[in-house]
Amino acid sequence: MAKAITQRKDNYSQWYLDIVKRAGLADHSKVKGCMVIKPTGFAIWENMRDELDRMFKETGHVNAYFPLFIPKSFLSREAQHVEGFAKECAVITHHRLMNDPNGNGVVVDPDAKLEEELIVRPTSETIIWDTYKDWINSYRDLPLLINQWANVVRWEMRTRLFLRTTEFLWQEGHTAHATREEAMEEALQMQRVYAEFAEEYMAMPVVKGIKTANERFAGADETFTIEALMQDGKALQAGTSHFLGQNFAKAFDVKFLNKENQQEYVWATSWGVSTRLLGGLIMTHSDDDGLVIPPKLAPTQVVIVPIPKPGPEIGEAAEKVMKALRGRGIRVKFDDDEKNRPGFKFAEHEMKGIPVRIGIGKRDLEKGQVEIARRDTKEKTFVPIDEAAAYIENLLAEIQNNLFERAKQFRDDNITKVDNFDDFKEAVSGNGNAEIESWGGGFVSAHWDGTTETELKIKELTKATIRCIPLDNEKEEGQCVLTGKPSGQRVLFAKAY
Amino acid sequence: MAKAITQRKDNYSQWYLDIVKRAGLADHSKVKGCMVIKPTGFAIWENMRDELDRMFKETGHVNAYFPLFIPKSFLSREAQHVEGFAKECAVITHHRLMNDPNGNGVVVDPDAKLEEELIVRPTSETIIWDTYKDWINSYRDLPLLINQWANVVRWEMRTRLFLRTTEFLWQEGHTAHATREEAMEEALQMQRVYAEFAEEYMAMPVVKGIKTANERFAGADETFTIEALMQDGKALQAGTSHFLGQNFAKAFDVKFLNKENQQEYVWATSWGVSTRLLGGLIMTHSDDDGLVIPPKLAPTQVVIVPIPKPGPEIGEAAEKVMKALRGRGIRVKFDDDEKNRPGFKFAEHEMKGIPVRIGIGKRDLEKGQVEIARRDTKEKTFVPIDEAAAYIENLLAEIQNNLFERAKQFRDDNITKVDNFDDFKEAVSGNGNAEIESWGGGFVSAHWDGTTETELKIKELTKATIRCIPLDNEKEEGQCVLTGKPSGQRVLFAKAY
Ligand SMILES: [Zn+2]
Ligand SMILES: [Zn+2]
Repeated sequence: MAKAITQRKDNYSQWYLDIVKRAGLADHSKVKGCMVIKPTGFAIWENMRDELDRMFKETGHVNAYFPLFIPKSFLSREAQHVEGFAKECAVITHHRLMNDPNGNGVVVDPDAKLEEELIVRPTSETIIWDTYKDWINSYRDLPLLINQWANVVRWEMRTRLFLRTTEFLWQEGHTAHATREEAMEEALQMQRVYAEFAEEYMAMPVVKGIKTANERFAGADETFTIEALMQDGKALQAGTSHFLGQNFAKAFDVKFLNKENQQEYVWATSWGVSTRLLGGLIMTHSDDDGLVIPPKLAPTQVVIVPIPKPGPEIGEAAEKVMKALRGRGIRVKFDDDEKNRPGFKFAEHEMKGIPVRIGIGKRDLEKGQVEIARRDTKEKTFVPIDEAAAYIENLLAEIQNNLFERAKQFRDDNITKVDNFDDFKEAVSGNGNAEIESWGGGFVSAHWDGTTETELKIKELTKATIRCIPLDNEKEEGQCVLTGKPSGQRVLFAKAY
Repeated sequence: MAKAITQRKDNYSQWYLDIVKRAGLADHSKVKGCMVIKPTGFAIWENMRDELDRMFKETGHVNAYFPLFIPKSFLSREAQHVEGFAKECAVITHHRLMNDPNGNGVVVDPDAKLEEELIVRPTSETIIWDTYKDWINSYRDLPLLINQWANVVRWEMRTRLFLRTTEFLWQEGHTAHATREEAMEEALQMQRVYAEFAEEYMAMPVVKGIKTANERFAGADETFTIEALMQDGKALQAGTSHFLGQNFAKAFDVKFLNKENQQEYVWATSWGVSTRLLGGLIMTHSDDDGLVIPPKLAPTQVVIVPIPKPGPEIGEAAEKVMKALRGRGIRVKFDDDEKNRPGFKFAEHEMKGIPVRIGIGKRDLEKGQVEIARRDTKEKTFVPIDEAAAYIENLLAEIQNNLFERAKQFRDDNITKVDNFDDFKEAVSGNGNAEIESWGGGFVSAHWDGTTETELKIKELTKATIRCIPLDNEKEEGQCVLTGKPSGQRVLFAKAY
């Protein structure tokens, strides 16, 4: 039997790391803060990417590719942006190495110093808007609806695989519009696309909301977000979509001739999700036996295990079942390893989160049946072999749905409404929930007076931040939990990743 | 009418650049040597990538992702590799910017100097073999068949869009094997995959060959290549596959326990193709009217132009044709722009290389027919509207085939066998071919004495390099064109991109 992983209640962070490593999703690399995405992890990312890419294209976007490097001066062009992104970044100062004159390997060639340093993109608004200046002349060139899949780098001091890494993979949409309204609708549309993807594919319920000024993207006039709740009661910002107003158009002097033959600045949005979503996927569904992957994103949806080991009859039955499953577009593998026993294999496939396992044994075959086990509930049942494919097609849909409903129930159970600061602190501190030692407290719905000052004070006192002002918020008169000042609606607080 | 592009005979380089820009494939960026891949160019790359990715997966490979950065010391670990790749590269020395104390924007924070500089990967053998050390313990972990799609950076002084850029996109396969034979077979298999992709999808005929020691990848024991001939008589190295022996395993100390329970160094391959292929695609097929794209890779395979302009009847007919085409999996667009006249549109769609154009006019509709024009030969014909989809499905296959045959004829017509150095120089100098001013001379098939010295001397005298020793070479006794020393086979020389 393989060694078990750390249990959530004992050490949630270690449980997460155990899953990432044992399920073969990612690894640390020798390069500080950079991860290696292993084949299984990358296959899940490919499935996520393909679905998102399809959704982007269905909403009229096309892909392009912009340079990895940004001239240092570009970062300074937009006042807010430079504050947000010119801090911790990878700076290229030279373009050549040479043999060390003292014979110690290679050293930087001092003669190859760049005139202007280059920054490895932390995000691409600047380089893209510098390019859009050449592409946009008239209203006929708009809208420009472009996305790019890329790697970006933000120098991070404390990293966690997928959740926060110095280099990560993402997509960044950058659109240009003739009117404020159209740009705003685009930003909101992409928030809806992200929410739909999170819920329908990742089975991860999210709250759609607006960020406060303090939590806004550097350079945006408005940031829309989707926020999810992890099993340890902490929130995860899962995707953001920014209405950039005319800020980047002004910074890079991008104007267009409108239908009235007048020059106007272009309106902009940008929006992105990253490999961070893999962290969210893991922490939404997995359990103490390992990874749980929603069927729609699972690289392998069904695994067949011969019991007790491979043989001609079992092999023949497995082939038949695989053919029927593949005919229904289901991704299936046959575990014909001869070395390990079924018990070991069961634990391994559970660890790796394969949604459905089929056990095929000789005695069951004589009865014309196979055993089908689902990963989410661990339930097992016997099904006639000829009905297995149809049964499993339904089962995969049921698992997908169950994972979402289970996560939604958990999320809804962990939104606490509070009306004074004592209750607020108690909710956020996680007292009263002994199940997970590092329990984050869930979402706390409370009135806030709308000032950054109060927001920062609450963060200082409790480590909770305002995750968002929910889009579907009811208007409700109340008093700020900290200052008692009047408030027109509740906002969602949480400790966050 | 849109402005015509430069003609090949007048200025081949400018013709190439005109096509790249006018067909909307790519643009220079403000970052020296880095390109912007525009939506149309990127859509072709996506089609190429998807086909290659499928072929890699069908041959048992999986994708993963390794860090963008390589510690400087890693480059020095493999003696040949450091010579080849530690020259012109992007060097990261700092990880923070700060506000200039003198108020001039942002400057590099001198306190944020890295202990060890990082290099932006020029290729990933070193970082990957450092990782494989952790992944490989026993023969049961082998083979490891991994590919990654990534951006890489090689600092280039003289760049040309797609053909040679500082940053480019590529895939790099990195495999690990238990035996020499298996690694060698893998390297050869991937050369075959590349050749099949080049010929069947890009319609670009290639010669499969072996590189000489002098042209070998830095760190390889053997480099296999596919070489194509461009319309200006210069060769393009279109893809390479390397048998790395145990060089990287030794450099990074990667051993495995074999079946006999002994420690052995692992055998390796690596192989890659890049966005350079887009340059090859353009230069293989395009003409003085613009881009020509093989149908299998064309983002838009068919465009419908209403004559003289859109209207309800034409719109209805177009919808019907589009539905029939899409039902056959054909990518079609309707050009319903109201501003430009058909002649302008025809020229634009030719410039952009759309393989087939359908003209729908009222008078033709009354006769129940549409006009179909093919991009490769410019031939036009009338076809009954109900038969248009079936006709076009065949036509696309015929165009794909014609492009390949035409390019193959050109290539075969431009392989010159020479047996003395005067003829060699004449062939390579391009005298006698007045069609293209910068004519490169095509492939020259000649005997060579097998020494690097002679190879370099010939390059010095003629600028021609040995592109490869063709795999299917006939053995033939002869004398080196330069030294007269004995030779057992001819090799292919050419001036190259
Ligand atoms: Zn320089
Ligand atoms: Zn530091």
